[in-house]
Amino acid sequence: MIIVLKPAISKKDENEVLKEIKKLGYKPHVMRGVERTVVGAIGDERTHQSLEVLSSWPQVESVMPVQKRYKLVSREAHKTTSTIKVGKQIIGGKKFQVMAGPCSVEDEMQLMKTAHAVAKAGATILRGGAFKPRTSPYEFQGLGEKGLKLLAKARRETGLYVITELLSEAHAELVAEYSDILQIGARNAQNFQLLIAAAKTGKPVLLKRGLSMKIEEWLLAGEYVLSNNNPNLMFCERGIRTFETYTRNTLDLSTIPIIKKESHCPIIIDPSQGAGRADLVVSMCKGAAAMGADALLIEVHPNPAEAWSDGAQQLSLEGFAKLMEELKPFIAAAGRD
Amino acid sequence: MIIVLKPAISKKDENEVLKEIKKLGYKPHVMRGVERTVVGAIGDERTHQSLEVLSSWPQVESVMPVQKRYKLVSREAHKTTSTIKVGKQIIGGKKFQVMAGPCSVEDEMQLMKTAHAVAKAGATILRGGAFKPRTSPYEFQGLGEKGLKLLAKARRETGLYVITELLSEAHAELVAEYSDILQIGARNAQNFQLLIAAAKTGKPVLLKRGLSMKIEEWLLAGEYVLSNNNPNLMFCERGIRTFETYTRNTLDLSTIPIIKKESHCPIIIDPSQGAGRADLVVSMCKGAAAMGADALLIEVHPNPAEAWSDGAQQLSLEGFAKLMEELKPFIAAAGRD
Amino acid sequence: MIIVLKPAISKKDENEVLKEIKKLGYKPHVMRGVERTVVGAIGDERTHQSLEVLSSWPQVESVMPVQKRYKLVSREAHKTTSTIKVGKQIIGGKKFQVMAGPCSVEDEMQLMKTAHAVAKAGATILRGGAFKPRTSPYEFQGLGEKGLKLLAKARRETGLYVITELLSEAHAELVAEYSDILQIGARNAQNFQLLIAAAKTGKPVLLKRGLSMKIEEWLLAGEYVLSNNNPNLMFCERGIRTFETYTRNTLDLSTIPIIKKESHCPIIIDPSQGAGRADLVVSMCKGAAAMGADALLIEVHPNPAEAWSDGAQQLSLEGFAKLMEELKPFIAAAGRD
Amino acid sequence: MIIVLKPAISKKDENEVLKEIKKLGYKPHVMRGVERTVVGAIGDERTHQSLEVLSSWPQVESVMPVQKRYKLVSREAHKTTSTIKVGKQIIGGKKFQVMAGPCSVEDEMQLMKTAHAVAKAGATILRGGAFKPRTSPYEFQGLGEKGLKLLAKARRETGLYVITELLSEAHAELVAEYSDILQIGARNAQNFQLLIAAAKTGKPVLLKRGLSMKIEEWLLAGEYVLSNNNPNLMFCERGIRTFETYTRNTLDLSTIPIIKKESHCPIIIDPSQGAGRADLVVSMCKGAAAMGADALLIEVHPNPAEAWSDGAQQLSLEGFAKLMEELKPFIAAAGRD
Repeated sequence: MIIVLKPAISKKDENEVLKEIKKLGYKPHVMRGVERTVVGAIGDERTHQSLEVLSSWPQVESVMPVQKRYKLVSREAHKTTSTIKVGKQIIGGKKFQVMAGPCSVEDEMQLMKTAHAVAKAGATILRGGAFKPRTSPYEFQGLGEKGLKLLAKARRETGLYVITELLSEAHAELVAEYSDILQIGARNAQNFQLLIAAAKTGKPVLLKRGLSMKIEEWLLAGEYVLSNNNPNLMFCERGIRTFETYTRNTLDLSTIPIIKKESHCPIIIDPSQGAGRADLVVSMCKGAAAMGADALLIEVHPNPAEAWSDGAQQLSLEGFAKLMEELKPFIAAAGRD
Repeated sequence: MIIVLKPAISKKDENEVLKEIKKLGYKPHVMRGVERTVVGAIGDERTHQSLEVLSSWPQVESVMPVQKRYKLVSREAHKTTSTIKVGKQIIGGKKFQVMAGPCSVEDEMQLMKTAHAVAKAGATILRGGAFKPRTSPYEFQGLGEKGLKLLAKARRETGLYVITELLSEAHAELVAEYSDILQIGARNAQNFQLLIAAAKTGKPVLLKRGLSMKIEEWLLAGEYVLSNNNPNLMFCERGIRTFETYTRNTLDLSTIPIIKKESHCPIIIDPSQGAGRADLVVSMCKGAAAMGADALLIEVHPNPAEAWSDGAQQLSLEGFAKLMEELKPFIAAAGRD
Repeated sequence: MIIVLKPAISKKDENEVLKEIKKLGYKPHVMRGVERTVVGAIGDERTHQSLEVLSSWPQVESVMPVQKRYKLVSREAHKTTSTIKVGKQIIGGKKFQVMAGPCSVEDEMQLMKTAHAVAKAGATILRGGAFKPRTSPYEFQGLGEKGLKLLAKARRETGLYVITELLSEAHAELVAEYSDILQIGARNAQNFQLLIAAAKTGKPVLLKRGLSMKIEEWLLAGEYVLSNNNPNLMFCERGIRTFETYTRNTLDLSTIPIIKKESHCPIIIDPSQGAGRADLVVSMCKGAAAMGADALLIEVHPNPAEAWSDGAQQLSLEGFAKLMEELKPFIAAAGRD
Repeated sequence: MIIVLKPAISKKDENEVLKEIKKLGYKPHVMRGVERTVVGAIGDERTHQSLEVLSSWPQVESVMPVQKRYKLVSREAHKTTSTIKVGKQIIGGKKFQVMAGPCSVEDEMQLMKTAHAVAKAGATILRGGAFKPRTSPYEFQGLGEKGLKLLAKARRETGLYVITELLSEAHAELVAEYSDILQIGARNAQNFQLLIAAAKTGKPVLLKRGLSMKIEEWLLAGEYVLSNNNPNLMFCERGIRTFETYTRNTLDLSTIPIIKKESHCPIIIDPSQGAGRADLVVSMCKGAAAMGADALLIEVHPNPAEAWSDGAQQLSLEGFAKLMEELKPFIAAAGRD
């Protein structure tokens, strides 16, 4: 930690700060500058009690951490890139993966039709919400266990693996029974009890970025998964909340090189939530592939105009097949299969 | 709903839109403007299936809702102002209430010392975290049930009522046993399963605004409480996330007149989380009182510099007593006791 | 400056950084921590070339400034609070000042009627736009010099002083001839050439905060005024841009204690732009007065519904008179006249 | 315009609104819904006085525009895609263009070395700041006219065309004399007087997006150029301001498909300002090329670590040459040369 003292404080005031630094288990190191005195507090910032409380002292102008707060998710801790095995598929490896399916599971026909179509077009993982977090209590909340059973049926029929959202600690075992990957949604990205429950199922966890989550906070939320003995974590960018109203969210594609640099975990892009408009999804998929994303998570529906949730952002079956064709040269240019 | 059609579409394309509107249970009403044709879809937007999916149709430029999405929390539904009884105290009434206490319950001495001091200075409700949501898994996570027991002891000794945070559905009954008000924190403000679990305990619920929650979303989250048969809801503004880095969050005091206008539920201000700096808290409390807030939620600690969490934003016991004195003329000017 | 080196770099790499620090005119001071080495670069950060470029070096993890970048506007540089004389009125002194008037000057009758009404209600300064910055080129751009002449006439008739916006360097002398205070609008808050031109007229300058301006940037923009030999600067908060859409902007009232703490210059609040809705303005004025603002800048119009610009946020003459009455106890509670 | 009336207002109140709508030149069209009455106001929203002022009426709940506010920049007005001729080069055509050069022109050697290197690597346009907008008045403000002359010399020697920033209306003719494209920076994106001055020089104008500019506002700012008889406008995304602090700004690559959809003007991406970190620039360039950008604007410096401004975000000469190689397959995949 670096502690910047206020200008022109007395020797006595300075000594009090130094004493407190020692009391908290750090070794102080004083550096006198032209206008301000700076104290380096030497010690492991992750195991000692935080010195940030010093910022409330009248003698102190600011306190700046030096070490990174995340550890297990960091590339420093794990130099090689992690890959995640989902059945016969590998996420984060040479093969560019596509997860696709409806926003919500609505009925058997809708799901089977979509599953067969996305499998045919080249997707390997089927997405579909059975438990849906909805802004209003009066909106469709998902089919629940019935939806999970339909997903399992689609898996048997198509060979696709399944990803679905976990909404409640109470459902962790149930959802893990039917799903190959557990998704933690943006609204629950800092619901740490849910993250721990998901980690403990042993299933791979896809952690979406919260609407106003800083990258450091996202990595630290991931740390809750890894520190609960589940190494199979992937990050998923789905757009952040900004002042712009043209799109539903602002998809932050810079997270691709940033997560690759800071972490060893795979990075997935969800352009459907990011754009909130199907007509922008295709372009964003191309950008994501070119920038080195490991996979895409795309909403596809046989009839987007009649979807029970988020119709505006879902691709049609034909639209998805066309996208998969158009993506090929970009995936190849990025050195992926 | 208002559906704006793209300019210069064919009669056939227009008819398809009208047909779909009818199919979804609305009556279309066509209005031809200078450049664009607009269709009013008449029907109850809250009970019919949403027409927003039409925005994905190629014929449609935009879809705009006309009705408000929230109902039970709205002032339209409930013309008189709601008050909440917490023991002998009333929140939302003539008396301006102050809830104060440490960020985290750390040990018996810290809590009792704070409880006696805030009671003496005029607070009626004791705050204190027993389960703490922390950005990093390596930070202090709260004393858990032991913390709840200390809060209950402080209640017995001081006569203060208790508010504490509920973090997990699994703890709802436990926390409700010890606490007079359940707090839903900013990170869980759209954890709807937790909101439902809190509502079902029957205890009053204080719902903090999420870091990037629009006012409409906040009101709709509150709707989850009221629609689960718990009428005792209060909203608590604690700062939103913006680009500014001088303060931890940007406290949005305009929520006071807005919540008063849109809803019948009380509005509480938490300036400690909002500012993240004790030196700004006093000024913000004055503003909140002047603008008509029903209560304040303030972090107070016997020794902020040694607090186990968020030391920078906690007031000292002396600082709190001084604040309570300074607030008096502003509370009086706002017509409160 | 504090330079944090990457973990585990070679001695040779470290020496290159130290050599560069010396070359840029600083004295390096090495501190070895548990995981990382930190270098303090001692020297005056405001006069030496910036060390921030080092952050592009592969050996360097981050570079953190220690000194504040603003100087003349800071309270460190000028311990006593500055006041600004505008004719017989003083801004920043014991008297709470109110500046009021229409968004745009539209015609003589509108302006005179407003001027007489706001003067009678207690305002001392008349606001009114003659040159208007409009988002669209097809919107009313202001009466220009004709508007300035009407403002001057209103000053003669009512004794009110005049504040109006300066939009173009080319108009600096013209606007200064008719106006007692020059306003720099939010869109031009980092139009440094305009700030310099305004400063050079010698008239007091009111600098609005830009829509996405950090407080540090705002203070530095003010530095352009003071460093061009004009000491009569006041800051004006008018709302920042956030994700919230209920209000036009989010009025950041925490700027009142922050500017008071960081700077010696007065702080003014403009609740009309901040809220974008007249029905919220009254409450925000009370908050601003309670929190210690030096003045208010309020939009008032004889018939808001027929205003040529921003009608939604302007108070009626009666609304303004009522507000002035209601504000009195809050101004008194804040220790002002 | 659509005017939504408050629920349960009297017939008399409703009639007053209808009367005002007629008075403002629109034809009202009443639609009675289940809970609310909605009035369509038929007329050209761009030429009539705005009805938005009605939102301040007590009878009115909200007012929603139906027409788009921009006209000349819109694809509706101009179905074919516009291209801009800069000497022998075309921006917005089949050829993907690269503009590169230093953030600031520092001296002859720095500029010539960079110009020759970027020309050799395939850039066709040289960027370089002669007048620099700097957050602090104590930072390097650019070489001014001397810098312009060096840019002109580099053009003669290398055949590259020149783009440089226009900061002040007073410099419009001077800068236009030396430059092939005038750049309007993010801080001046709503400095409409500067936009008009730039348009009137007749030179192509590159308009950067302001830090917190909505896409609609950006298009409307472009409207100031086209409506002043200059058809040669290009938009340049350079990152918006969000809560994230890992990067300097958040580069919004979704602007590529959005500008292509809404406007006929070219869209350029500036990844250097967007990322603020050279190590992320390469990935962002690939994304931009894949998503269909017309050109890139990249900061390149012979020795980024010693640059006089923004060193952290500038590529080295070798880094730039390598980037140009790596971009090729992505440009090809996007169907460009």
